[in-house]
Amino acid sequence: PTTVDLAADDYELGGHPDFMRKEMAEQPEAVARALRGRLDERFATAHLGGLGLDPMALRAVRRVKFLGCGSAYYAGQMGATLVEELARIPADAEPASEFRYRNPVVDPDALYVAISQSGETLDTLAAVQELRRKGGRVIGAVNVVGSAIARECGSGVFLHAGPEVSVASTKALTNMTVSFAMLGLLLGRVRDLSAASGQRIVSGLRALPAQIEEILTEDARVQQVAKRHAHARHMFFLGRVRGWPVAREGAQKLKEISYVHAEAYQSAELKHGPLALIDADMPSVVVVPHDELLAKNIGTMEQIRARGGPVIAVTNAEIPEGLADEVIRVPRGEPELDPILLTIPLQLLAYHIAAELGRDIDKPRNLAKSVTVE
Amino acid sequence: PTTVDLAADDYELGGHPDFMRKEMAEQPEAVARALRGRLDERFATAHLGGLGLDPMALRAVRRVKFLGCGSAYYAGQMGATLVEELARIPADAEPASEFRYRNPVVDPDALYVAISQSGETLDTLAAVQELRRKGGRVIGAVNVVGSAIARECGSGVFLHAGPEVSVASTKALTNMTVSFAMLGLLLGRVRDLSAASGQRIVSGLRALPAQIEEILTEDARVQQVAKRHAHARHMFFLGRVRGWPVAREGAQKLKEISYVHAEAYQSAELKHGPLALIDADMPSVVVVPHDELLAKNIGTMEQIRARGGPVIAVTNAEIPEGLADEVIRVPRGEPELDPILLTIPLQLLAYHIAAELGRDIDKPRNLAKSVTVE
Repeated sequence: PTTVDLAADDYELGGHPDFMRKEMAEQPEAVARALRGRLDERFATAHLGGLGLDPMALRAVRRVKFLGCGSAYYAGQMGATLVEELARIPADAEPASEFRYRNPVVDPDALYVAISQSGETLDTLAAVQELRRKGGRVIGAVNVVGSAIARECGSGVFLHAGPEVSVASTKALTNMTVSFAMLGLLLGRVRDLSAASGQRIVSGLRALPAQIEEILTEDARVQQVAKRHAHARHMFFLGRVRGWPVAREGAQKLKEISYVHAEAYQSAELKHGPLALIDADMPSVVVVPHDELLAKNIGTMEQIRARGGPVIAVTNAEIPEGLADEVIRVPRGEPELDPILLTIPLQLLAYHIAAELGRDIDKPRNLAKSVTVE
Repeated sequence: PTTVDLAADDYELGGHPDFMRKEMAEQPEAVARALRGRLDERFATAHLGGLGLDPMALRAVRRVKFLGCGSAYYAGQMGATLVEELARIPADAEPASEFRYRNPVVDPDALYVAISQSGETLDTLAAVQELRRKGGRVIGAVNVVGSAIARECGSGVFLHAGPEVSVASTKALTNMTVSFAMLGLLLGRVRDLSAASGQRIVSGLRALPAQIEEILTEDARVQQVAKRHAHARHMFFLGRVRGWPVAREGAQKLKEISYVHAEAYQSAELKHGPLALIDADMPSVVVVPHDELLAKNIGTMEQIRARGGPVIAVTNAEIPEGLADEVIRVPRGEPELDPILLTIPLQLLAYHIAAELGRDIDKPRNLAKSVTVE
């Protein structure tokens, strides 16, 4: 049986103004907990005993599909990118609600991953039931031990984020992506990921808690940026490849708690429509990882600037002076893990914009923490 | 060699105020041209000789992936739904720009479909080149004969939409979806789609031109709706399963030509974030096909109304009186083909909102008809 350590103060604010703030601050510790006992330096891999899959079963996986709702779906998209990069297995993500209703073709050679912080999200539970009924192999990625999805799956990876109270998920989402990095590492190491590359990822994962701590110290800087752009009615969040699910999650978080109409777009799709909307009143948050697409992302920022749109860059790369109106910096780690780190400042940005607008951060209007209705 | 009939007046307005209007009006004729000689009543299937795939090759396809940019990507998403429904082959769509840059795992058992009206879209061409270099099987879905993508693919399905001048694609997009319905029919009929079901789809396809004609006669009604909502700064477009790509394309079209910030959402995802934004100033266009999800879609409209959001329903179903502020009706055909018909009034809606706002409809700011740069 998997257990999670809970303390009485998990449900108290402990000096924080609200739960979202507290839960963001807990992320270094939450990630350390998710990694504990799961990284194997000797064989440069991860141990995820709860999966219930031996090496032959892992080797037989020909496809991975992540299913979730809301932020869990975007975490799944980051997971798909991680798995495809590390293990070279085709992977994708789909909203659980779409999957359950479209009479999907269930692939017996695929591994399905059902993602839910609460483990009670109704659409995700229904997707799991549909999969099991059709003989699909489905594991859970769930925070709450003993929850409906955890029980229905019977196997999976617990997130160990600790209780999350704020409607907007932060530490649970981060632990989802960390868990999927470990899943990608494990699937990669039973395939063609070398020990040296595996070791690189293990070290990258170990470095995350301290790096997240470092990002959290940028809080005052992000708050400044938030103050300057809080009154925009619209925002774009742009990213490509590794940066794309980060942009989606960033837009979702802002929308949820600030009610600013934030929309995420693939950077390259900008010129196929949304560019028509860019002007001085429409800031764009551009996610710029330090990777081989840097030149393209610089081009994206230039396109936006050329139309008079303000640019907020979230980056661990060196970008030309004066290209972005605001630059929020993130420490550099292993490129595959960049999405995990780049997501954190977008939480802070959403938080401070919502605070600036005087929103009820932990209980945004019209939303529930755990969606147990259709 | 495939040829397209061109007349001198293809590039003239012929009494229409702009090319978008002319091209919308040409859709019945364009669809009839796409179907001509390709439907086989006797064997209840489609003939797409240009694919260069014999029945054994068609039978060997284990997966279909559609690649395109902008509206072509959304057409691909409709194609994926059609193929998965009719042929029960897992299918999906991805922006060509993401695919080309993420070092994708290329599946030797998959059929890739590269979609581009002009056949010159640079990101799509690059995706085709990446696929061919990796030994992937890729066909084109292209309107312009002799274009770069048509040549690079060497096989595929020509759209026969005739020249399209307006930046916002209408008749080419409709012919993409019609072509993908034929592809789904063909792939289905070499598998488990019965002759009776195939015949049903053949008849449904044959009925499309007259049904589109009927939708176009609703123009004045759509114009009224447009006038009442043209000054909204934001709009949501909502749909689920068959209605979801329709909603995406509807939002894209409105965004492109009117610069209203329209965003598409899966209806079931509404409660995981966007519901926070709904109020009297944020109308929602809800795509409601007459299918087994009608009750869910009625629930979606009720949720929006409960938050004071105006509802514009686009539907071929019977919906309760008073539930939607505006109802735009579409004739009922075969359920699988609903996305094709439901897309048409959304073109009209985007057109009339843009006209009401005094936009330059054929040449929206910042956008080009054929994106031949990165």
